[in-house]
Amino acid sequence: MAVRDHGDPGDAPSAPPPLRPPTNDARPSAAEQARTIAAATNAATLASLTADGDPWASFVAYGLLGGMPVLCVSDLAEHGRNLAADPRASLSIVAATTDVDPLAGSRITLAGKVVRPSDADRDAARAAYLSAVPAARFYLDFSDFTLWLLRVERVRWVGGYGRMDSATGEQYASAEPDPVAPAAAGAVAHLNADHADALAAMARAFGGYPDADTAACTGVDRYGLDLRVHTPRGVAYTRVGFPERLASADQLRSATAELARSARHSS
Amino acid sequence: MAVRDHGDPGDAPSAPPPLRPPTNDARPSAAEQARTIAAATNAATLASLTADGDPWASFVAYGLLGGMPVLCVSDLAEHGRNLAADPRASLSIVAATTDVDPLAGSRITLAGKVVRPSDADRDAARAAYLSAVPAARFYLDFSDFTLWLLRVERVRWVGGYGRMDSATGEQYASAEPDPVAPAAAGAVAHLNADHADALAAMARAFGGYPDADTAACTGVDRYGLDLRVHTPRGVAYTRVGFPERLASADQLRSATAELARSARHSS
Repeated sequence: MAVRDHGDPGDAPSAPPPLRPPTNDARPSAAEQARTIAAATNAATLASLTADGDPWASFVAYGLLGGMPVLCVSDLAEHGRNLAADPRASLSIVAATTDVDPLAGSRITLAGKVVRPSDADRDAARAAYLSAVPAARFYLDFSDFTLWLLRVERVRWVGGYGRMDSATGEQYASAEPDPVAPAAAGAVAHLNADHADALAAMARAFGGYPDADTAACTGVDRYGLDLRVHTPRGVAYTRVGFPERLASADQLRSATAELARSARHSS
Repeated sequence: MAVRDHGDPGDAPSAPPPLRPPTNDARPSAAEQARTIAAATNAATLASLTADGDPWASFVAYGLLGGMPVLCVSDLAEHGRNLAADPRASLSIVAATTDVDPLAGSRITLAGKVVRPSDADRDAARAAYLSAVPAARFYLDFSDFTLWLLRVERVRWVGGYGRMDSATGEQYASAEPDPVAPAAAGAVAHLNADHADALAAMARAFGGYPDADTAACTGVDRYGLDLRVHTPRGVAYTRVGFPERLASADQLRSATAELARSARHSS
């Protein structure tokens, strides 16, 4: 049978189904994905409302106080005037990706209303912004700059083609960013470079693809591994979960090694 | 006098002024900058209006028909429903930068209204989107996807700290992207690696800094070079224009060499 790998996620309709259900396909929730994406960068696009009620998209830097975005914009700038006149706002944050297709990557929208933090909140917001945007020390205290906190009421997460979900502001506030995320890219590279056999064994034992020839890791998080699986039936994507959610990036190596060991024993 | 180079644009207030006016500080207009930034990538953030009139920021891919952004979004997605209900929209596009400070880079907002292109326009818009987003061939003709053209009525360009300007939709439509832009990064690297002496000579002869010790090129466009100049008085930024606007990237090498020769002769 022909392998139909077009080299992009648009080939999804041709992906062969698993031959049995994956053993454990636990994944981060939309709220966790959103907290993780928000924590990974310091640049976003703000949507605010002009005096005419038109939507205005503008690039901003941000810090995080808990999960709440902290903005610092000039009252002289269009988006600064917009927020001062109408607090409704949303923020689009895009996860870094190496895929040539921008829509294959993950992104979130955090929507709510901005407030001017006061007193202790203001000090914390100021510190959060400076921590994320060190160059702001040169202008943060200029009289025309205002700190804003975005109180998130609604979250939309899109994880690439066909993967998307919503979360409430409460779910977002109580979720935590994935502690494994900062180590994920390195782990993916290491697994693909040095442990291809183990990945294929995992795909066969736990991923639902006992006919996997080879497998590559496309993502790592505290719940498990994303795998791209080559089979004689075509290319598919699956998931191999850890027995328990990891508490820190330190646990990633031993959890992955244990998964590989179990996979080999069960084959 | 102390050199106060903080390593980021926040040091601008301490920059020493030129000792004489730069000879030719011609630069691209805001409309030209916007056309150039829009032509350099295929990913942006859309601001649209929800049913409640709230601003909704969402990641999109786009193509260009002339300078008009072409979007292709699902009617099932929130931003697709938003555009169908209210055509007011804006698009934020961010230029690639290697600066650690995201706000040091260039970005634009294109604001206007979306329309569904019909007939010949639709074919052209479809081709423009596919050219920019090849993976769209897998879903562009799905019945839930709609092509939209953003008719740009207003443009805002921000070129980093303290550099910003607006343009009308007409100015944007009639401007052209800088033909030198695709060659700019390579030219900057080459000039800094192999022609540091020539850059310093240009800064002294034409940039208004006869006391320049060294100079580095920070940008190249069809109108000239951006230079960062080290002097005993501190670090400054200046501009050295070509005698004539370049018509193509092919002219970049000879125009820069000629500028270097003139600078040496006048020293």
